[in-house]
Amino acid sequence: MKKDPERLQKQMAFLLEADKEKFITRQTLLSDGKRRENDAEHAWHLALMTLLLGEYANEKIDLLHTVSMVLIHDLVEIYAGDTFAYDEEGKKTQRARETAAADRLFAMLPQDQGKRIRALWEEFEAARTPEAAFARAMDNLQPTMLNAATGGIAWEEHGTRLSEVLQRQAVTPRGSKALWDYCYREYLEPNIQAGKIRDDLSQKKSE
Amino acid sequence: MKKDPERLQKQMAFLLEADKEKFITRQTLLSDGKRRENDAEHAWHLALMTLLLGEYANEKIDLLHTVSMVLIHDLVEIYAGDTFAYDEEGKKTQRARETAAADRLFAMLPQDQGKRIRALWEEFEAARTPEAAFARAMDNLQPTMLNAATGGIAWEEHGTRLSEVLQRQAVTPRGSKALWDYCYREYLEPNIQAGKIRDDLSQKKSE
Repeated sequence: MKKDPERLQKQMAFLLEADKEKFITRQTLLSDGKRRENDAEHAWHLALMTLLLGEYANEKIDLLHTVSMVLIHDLVEIYAGDTFAYDEEGKKTQRARETAAADRLFAMLPQDQGKRIRALWEEFEAARTPEAAFARAMDNLQPTMLNAATGGIAWEEHGTRLSEVLQRQAVTPRGSKALWDYCYREYLEPNIQAGKIRDDLSQKKSE
Repeated sequence: MKKDPERLQKQMAFLLEADKEKFITRQTLLSDGKRRENDAEHAWHLALMTLLLGEYANEKIDLLHTVSMVLIHDLVEIYAGDTFAYDEEGKKTQRARETAAADRLFAMLPQDQGKRIRALWEEFEAARTPEAAFARAMDNLQPTMLNAATGGIAWEEHGTRLSEVLQRQAVTPRGSKALWDYCYREYLEPNIQAGKIRDDLSQKKSE
């Protein structure tokens, strides 16, 4: 198998195509507040976080499996583009766009690896295994850390509401209760207090 | 251990500091030839390559260990800066600058994790284990792939000589003979032929 020259050609063609993940810009600002993060930087940061924070997973996780998942989780955005977490219109077509992108992109790989990467991506999307729940927790914790570091500019700019944040973060405590507690206390609460995240839930209560 | 609140504070402070790796620019141009790559993007690419190309390692490697190594291998550059592979002056002080950076950066982590990441970095630098040799092979193969994809602009711009390339790539076949053969045949040879890499070795022969 390893001596099939076509196999390596395919792998290298895929790895060169993967370079385009560096051109996909997210909404999150980097910690200096000066430019937006791209998908490759984001994936690297999640992988590093997984290595150092894996000990806080609710259930013991396979680290290599989880790191692999975060490394590949945004590859489909090379063709499908980044869909902002709170873009309700974009989210309606997101699954279809990303599935088409996965069909096209992962088919570049030798069949066994294409299937494996596809399965990892589907697992991340479904968020049912302990590894996927933890990977999704990382995917939520990292931009929250950066948004908090820049004084909540991105939340303010988008008029982000607390109900939206909590809906998106619903998976975080399923990955790690300890990290969700930290995330809420250190990053979200101060920004709710400061009005950077619009507290639409207390308003409802007081209406 | 996990319930020590200081532990998580330290880890998150380190992970926020790590965001600065995204500000460290390398000499390599991305595949579109429009801007230079940064260290975080580079590390992500190496990790993805390790997952897909690990099967070509000369000796069986531990994938999690190798992926961890490539994810952290450039963190010291947050303080020490990137030293271009062919910058002979910069390389004289590189080890001292990077060691000081490692002392400062890894001390931010809880002691056990700081030691572990430091050991991974030292292992990468020493390039003696099969995992480190493979990680170093990835660190050479990836910019070579990108340089070739952009038509060798970066080599031409720096007046890179073949003897320098071969010196730097000496570790690559120690990590993977198969990938080194591919790298030489597909990326280097056409650029030597095209004069993008200056062939100072044949010249010597014909003198």
